[in-house]
Amino acid sequence: PYLSENSKTLVVGPSTWHEGTEIAQPITWSAHFTPLGQRLQESTATELLALRQLSTQSGITSLAMGLPDPALIPVERFQQAWEAILSRIGAEALGVSPVQGIAPLRELLSDRLRCQGVSANPENVVVVNDSQQGLDLLLRLFTEPGDTVITEAPTYYRNGMEVERVEFLLARYRPRLIYTGPTYQNPTGCTMSLERRQKLLTLAQRYQVPIIEDDPFSELYFDEPPPPPIKALDDAGHVLYLGTFSKCLSPGLRVGWLVAPQPVAKLATLLRRATDLQPNTLGQHLVIEFARRGWLDEHVAAARASYANRCQAMDAALRRHLPRGAKWHTPGGGLFLWLELPEQVAAHELPSETGQQGVVFLPGRFLYPTNGRQNVCRLNFSVPDEESIERAVAVLGSALCKLLCREVGVVAEQTLVSPAV
Amino acid sequence: PYLSENSKTLVVGPSTWHEGTEIAQPITWSAHFTPLGQRLQESTATELLALRQLSTQSGITSLAMGLPDPALIPVERFQQAWEAILSRIGAEALGVSPVQGIAPLRELLSDRLRCQGVSANPENVVVVNDSQQGLDLLLRLFTEPGDTVITEAPTYYRNGMEVERVEFLLARYRPRLIYTGPTYQNPTGCTMSLERRQKLLTLAQRYQVPIIEDDPFSELYFDEPPPPPIKALDDAGHVLYLGTFSKCLSPGLRVGWLVAPQPVAKLATLLRRATDLQPNTLGQHLVIEFARRGWLDEHVAAARASYANRCQAMDAALRRHLPRGAKWHTPGGGLFLWLELPEQVAAHELPSETGQQGVVFLPGRFLYPTNGRQNVCRLNFSVPDEESIERAVAVLGSALCKLLCREVGVVAEQTLVSPAV
Repeated sequence: PYLSENSKTLVVGPSTWHEGTEIAQPITWSAHFTPLGQRLQESTATELLALRQLSTQSGITSLAMGLPDPALIPVERFQQAWEAILSRIGAEALGVSPVQGIAPLRELLSDRLRCQGVSANPENVVVVNDSQQGLDLLLRLFTEPGDTVITEAPTYYRNGMEVERVEFLLARYRPRLIYTGPTYQNPTGCTMSLERRQKLLTLAQRYQVPIIEDDPFSELYFDEPPPPPIKALDDAGHVLYLGTFSKCLSPGLRVGWLVAPQPVAKLATLLRRATDLQPNTLGQHLVIEFARRGWLDEHVAAARASYANRCQAMDAALRRHLPRGAKWHTPGGGLFLWLELPEQVAAHELPSETGQQGVVFLPGRFLYPTNGRQNVCRLNFSVPDEESIERAVAVLGSALCKLLCREVGVVAEQTLVSPAV
Repeated sequence: PYLSENSKTLVVGPSTWHEGTEIAQPITWSAHFTPLGQRLQESTATELLALRQLSTQSGITSLAMGLPDPALIPVERFQQAWEAILSRIGAEALGVSPVQGIAPLRELLSDRLRCQGVSANPENVVVVNDSQQGLDLLLRLFTEPGDTVITEAPTYYRNGMEVERVEFLLARYRPRLIYTGPTYQNPTGCTMSLERRQKLLTLAQRYQVPIIEDDPFSELYFDEPPPPPIKALDDAGHVLYLGTFSKCLSPGLRVGWLVAPQPVAKLATLLRRATDLQPNTLGQHLVIEFARRGWLDEHVAAARASYANRCQAMDAALRRHLPRGAKWHTPGGGLFLWLELPEQVAAHELPSETGQQGVVFLPGRFLYPTNGRQNVCRLNFSVPDEESIERAVAVLGSALCKLLCREVGVVAEQTLVSPAV
């Protein structure tokens, strides 16, 4: 039990015991929640949970998720890997893991990172359940409620975060962190140029503000590899780097990684111990076995090819089915395409139409840290196959046309009818 | 990306870009950490991590861990279960899981809880990585730094928390939570009586303070089952209940559960989404398959028998090898025995002796929320076999005797020598 983080503890002292019959009153839970709990109650997360649930229902084509294609998951290879693991190490594969992650996996990650230009020793690598857990740990270590963080709003930036404006913010607000997803960013699919990466790093160094670089997609490029991670340019250790196998192998394994200078890696490990004790052992061994057999690289290559095709299919379908005024940037990798609807339309008006035809997607307003634009949405092209993409985009396009026309119709009708009354 | 919990976000504004050559200075990380981070740096968690690492080295007999016996983990059955899962549901077993946990597992848990007298619908069950994650989520939802929580100090209470003293504390301090492990408590192995459970619940109801009941061990009883969980007595919904498969099946799976009234279960799910998105899918399916085949109950029965024998072996070895003044309570279940050394000895003086002979254990002072007693230690009897237990306790006993005698010797020598100088 780990209580010391958040609490004082009472040593039990003397008292008098009152007996009696009482009728227990239920608790009014909302009065007991912390401000964090209160904010969660009011957040849009409930709507996102509902959308996630809807996305898994049969008969639904979902462009709302951010997952690898389930059809790509190599079930037979997982079976063979599992057999090899059990015959080689047996029960150890189901037993305890070091809190920081098993050593062979941290060595493997260190080697793979070196190929991307990131120099990290296994001691700098902390295995986490997913980038999400790494982010949560870092936010708990570096920010308190009310602190300021610089991040992209997911507006349409062809080259990622507008670094030119960052220095003003650094000087004025002295933020605790810069959080960025520079490569095939979720949700826009945009990629920060090498020049901007270098500038952002220089600024972080000048103002001594850590950068959290969230990089789940950089292996999933289509034509050519993206620029190196900011972490690869980071010779003085200002970048805290997050990656995951959830997008390029399988989300059910829950294996991601955090790369950080020693003091941060150590503290993240201690906090992780208090959070959920250790990573799951089995998922770690499965990843190692996949890598040893060369299957990890094969799998990533297959995913690249498949998602490149699907992205192209979505781009073509959008050209065919979307009305004038819709705009999008076709990404060079990753899982998402960011669609800008004509200004007079709000994305959340569409689901009631598209839902009837079994198509769901994510209105973009959920993806802004503060007030977001209404006429944007995130479309995923990795889960549905090309045929489903074609159909789903057709449904989206026709719903959009209907909305555009109906709006005009209603106004026209009122205009026509009113004077006659 | 989930940033809204802890942070304000800056919208990127205009700025002037300064070019120039700069030499990047490394960050002084300790100056950047939050108070939580600072506390972690100063905590004893580093020593516990080192002990955990030492415990897994070959040639070491560790009484320091809190794990099931690795030799009991049924490797072949896990292999068969995995084959069955892949042939039945395929890639789904490696794919995405609902944040709250997959429905069949929550149904299974709901059924199993009913057998323990706990009525909970699947909607009340949240699958977590382990009790630890459940505890972390609840502490974040109900406590802020500086808040007060009532819990046992792990002193030698034969019947668990001294409930008679709790009312005074409730009235005086208005704590946010009561946290208790009433059954084969970690670290003492003690069990709260049914009468005390009822009294504690009545108090929690009277003062409208939630109880967190941490119950990882109640299935691991030796002779007779323990009293029902406090949650089973809880008709008005004041108890938040935590359980796990880490102790009675396998810690590598990372499957535990939180049972709570609907508003709390919902909020814990939302916070879990922000923490690490979802439980690992594979571990959940393995548990379901084990239960379907009746293997879960068989495994728990085997663990019960094995740990009962080992507990008996430890008790016998302690009687044989420990000097006068050592005291312990032989538990009726669980994984731990709490040993009280003679008052003049501190448990942390022993490891330098026992370590040389490859025996490690956990000094009790690590297990107090505030200043702890020095002459206590926690001994695990589930990991080492009977022979190792005998040897380890002999080493412990002889180190203790040596320490007791040497101390006396030094004093005697000084007494004798001093007057002659």
